[in-house]
Amino acid sequence: MAKIAPRTLSGFMELLPEDQIRFDRMAEIIRESFSVYGYAPLDTPVIEAAEVLLAKGGGETEKQIYRMTKGDSDLALRFDLTVPLAKYVALHYGQLTFPFRRFQIGKVYRGERAQRGRFREFYQADIDIIGDGSLAVINEAEIPGVIYHTFQALGLKDFVIRVNNRKVLNGLFLAMDLQEKSGAIMQTVDKLEKIGREKTAAILVDDFSVPQADADRLLDLLTSGQRGASPVAILSSYMGKNELLDTGIEELLTVAKHMEAFGVPDTHFVVDLTIARGLDYYTGTVYETIIPAHPEIGSICSGGRYDNLAEYYTDRQLPGVGISIGLTRLFYVLEEQKYLNDKLLAAPADALVLPMTDDWGPAIAFATALRTVGLRTQIYGEDKKFKAKMSYADKLGIPYVVFLGEDEIAQNKVTVKDMITGEQETITAREAAERIAAGVKDGRTARPIQAE
Amino acid sequence: MAKIAPRTLSGFMELLPEDQIRFDRMAEIIRESFSVYGYAPLDTPVIEAAEVLLAKGGGETEKQIYRMTKGDSDLALRFDLTVPLAKYVALHYGQLTFPFRRFQIGKVYRGERAQRGRFREFYQADIDIIGDGSLAVINEAEIPGVIYHTFQALGLKDFVIRVNNRKVLNGLFLAMDLQEKSGAIMQTVDKLEKIGREKTAAILVDDFSVPQADADRLLDLLTSGQRGASPVAILSSYMGKNELLDTGIEELLTVAKHMEAFGVPDTHFVVDLTIARGLDYYTGTVYETIIPAHPEIGSICSGGRYDNLAEYYTDRQLPGVGISIGLTRLFYVLEEQKYLNDKLLAAPADALVLPMTDDWGPAIAFATALRTVGLRTQIYGEDKKFKAKMSYADKLGIPYVVFLGEDEIAQNKVTVKDMITGEQETITAREAAERIAAGVKDGRTARPIQAE
Repeated sequence: MAKIAPRTLSGFMELLPEDQIRFDRMAEIIRESFSVYGYAPLDTPVIEAAEVLLAKGGGETEKQIYRMTKGDSDLALRFDLTVPLAKYVALHYGQLTFPFRRFQIGKVYRGERAQRGRFREFYQADIDIIGDGSLAVINEAEIPGVIYHTFQALGLKDFVIRVNNRKVLNGLFLAMDLQEKSGAIMQTVDKLEKIGREKTAAILVDDFSVPQADADRLLDLLTSGQRGASPVAILSSYMGKNELLDTGIEELLTVAKHMEAFGVPDTHFVVDLTIARGLDYYTGTVYETIIPAHPEIGSICSGGRYDNLAEYYTDRQLPGVGISIGLTRLFYVLEEQKYLNDKLLAAPADALVLPMTDDWGPAIAFATALRTVGLRTQIYGEDKKFKAKMSYADKLGIPYVVFLGEDEIAQNKVTVKDMITGEQETITAREAAERIAAGVKDGRTARPIQAE
Repeated sequence: MAKIAPRTLSGFMELLPEDQIRFDRMAEIIRESFSVYGYAPLDTPVIEAAEVLLAKGGGETEKQIYRMTKGDSDLALRFDLTVPLAKYVALHYGQLTFPFRRFQIGKVYRGERAQRGRFREFYQADIDIIGDGSLAVINEAEIPGVIYHTFQALGLKDFVIRVNNRKVLNGLFLAMDLQEKSGAIMQTVDKLEKIGREKTAAILVDDFSVPQADADRLLDLLTSGQRGASPVAILSSYMGKNELLDTGIEELLTVAKHMEAFGVPDTHFVVDLTIARGLDYYTGTVYETIIPAHPEIGSICSGGRYDNLAEYYTDRQLPGVGISIGLTRLFYVLEEQKYLNDKLLAAPADALVLPMTDDWGPAIAFATALRTVGLRTQIYGEDKKFKAKMSYADKLGIPYVVFLGEDEIAQNKVTVKDMITGEQETITAREAAERIAAGVKDGRTARPIQAE
């Protein structure tokens, strides 16, 4: 028969079992963490009507989208989880209770140029809180708590959540009489960390005709935190210039004030006035999360407050706040940086049971007993040499192998071999289950990211 | 702004939060159950090269497939999890250890005619064991153990796993000199339950020229189990007719013999010689799982042994055995039949914390404490009347509401209201956490399917 060469599309992550176990453990912890914060799970279709998905239209989105015709239908694959959320909330508005808190972990599709570390199919892990008409600022304050708890639970130690407020930036632009160029200035400020202060100032002055003195004053203020000053103290001195700025400062102070109560330590949280986030639809608090040791990775979790989730579908005002973790890229980067924890047991089983007699009954019954107490168990029944059987366990990293030969069966015992120490012992089934459970506990509960 | 009417495509399941929680709980239990049997998780892309996905080609598949062009690439969405597994095993052969045991729970796409209860996007939950060159029959015996344990864990009580062996059927056809028509006879026998014995006999005689006496003899034998006879005993009397039949009988007896050791009770397992399963690539044991009270639902978990997983991609002989649960349809049917368990806590949170003072600090700190011990907690900070806040908890079915007013804060206590009994008590934070944990334990661990 003529063969088709098997291949996986470029830009599509496909993991070997060990890495898949690590990836799934990360996703599971994120899911648990989001659940603990009282977000409900959501799972919208991967395919939507193109018209619905592209309601906003234009830009990179349309170029990158995976689109197809099926029958008479013009269909597209979702490129993020926010547009499907907007559709969902607008469509099911009458059946939802607000504020509506949901998380979604799912694959999204973007036909980007193939490139190392860039993915066309990737997981996003999002949370959002959607208000009906209004949404209290306490929800914005909660988000760093979720971010901190989630990365903490994953095992990441060294990360910082940076927070700013768009109203503060726009209020400052207004105070400096730069409001007409606020969009362009916001975009420029957003690049400050990447391109440096000098270039930022040059763009402001040359491209957007901001007077040099204003540009200096603005950048002095925004970067004051980086020079050890308290941006909060400095901002307080700006109070009263205009209402927008006052509101922004108040919100930012409110968010900062509650960090301790939300369990976020000082070491992992900073108000940083240079954070703008690219997307133009943020209107209040904005977030990003960085690993200081690896600034090149960029933000691993970002988001912000927006005023109008579903304006393309409904007249209702649905303000919200949300964040997104690009899980596929995060996993890729963590692996590349050797941040994945070797101590996490990435084998598909805790124990491998080897029947050594013609009657498999006792070995099967023992495996069933292990499974009943939640131990992940395989039975190896292939007709191979003993060495091949041990090599199977070894290659998969299964930590315990259990033999049931004539002697063991006669004594109503089993022989357990610890594959790491090489020690083996003939003990009762119950003792074996306890031994294995104790032996795999640390490996099964280890955090997927390693502590430095 | 002109609005686009929000909609979800027909044939695409999109659940409200409560149902999503129930669905996710089912998926989680299936994942845990498959893991306990030592299957490794796998997650292949939803999109593959059309050439790869359609290597087998022809039939319904090509008509139903979602296909698209992106740049120069001819792409398609997976229509099952078996073809991607075949690709995966052929592609990563050198890095896998055999027998390769994997599970995958993921969405697949089939452009079927829209119809109530038919889905175009649906989850399949599959397990497969793939051997390299050979695969011991013990793997076939294990499968009913996984099926039993999984549905048991989901809470389904009344189901039966039916098992047969294709070699037995083909061996019988051979013994009756009907081997040339074995494919057609197999297909006909497969419909026996649906169309009845009389029609089946008529098709065999009229369409496939099987002599009436042979058709009767065959159908007598196949249905003997349904008339109370032991098919095993009857089969034993057929031993020695031909090698294929002997092998089949031996395999079937081996599978049946080990059911007890695998923890499958007699009540939930039956050898049924009428089971053929439609797919033509099964070559040994075949499985289906039915709910006797609802025969109209059909099989909720089916599969079988096959000789050659990846023949379109590789010359290697890769025999395997696997089963599949159509999870989306199963959920739909369970809901329709009122099989979903009301006792499962389907609220997005265990507790709702209401700050009642201007300073939210104590309420937030208490919520953080609840979250730290794993209780799913929301803080409600919207500026609404008390009644609206209670109604929020009520609508979402959140079982506990916790108030922190001036008095509580002064006493270093909280007031917990049980939303079911209406009772409320002012106690310490620790007592409150214990009370809530105890109160939600049953609801959170309840099985998603209800016991009749």
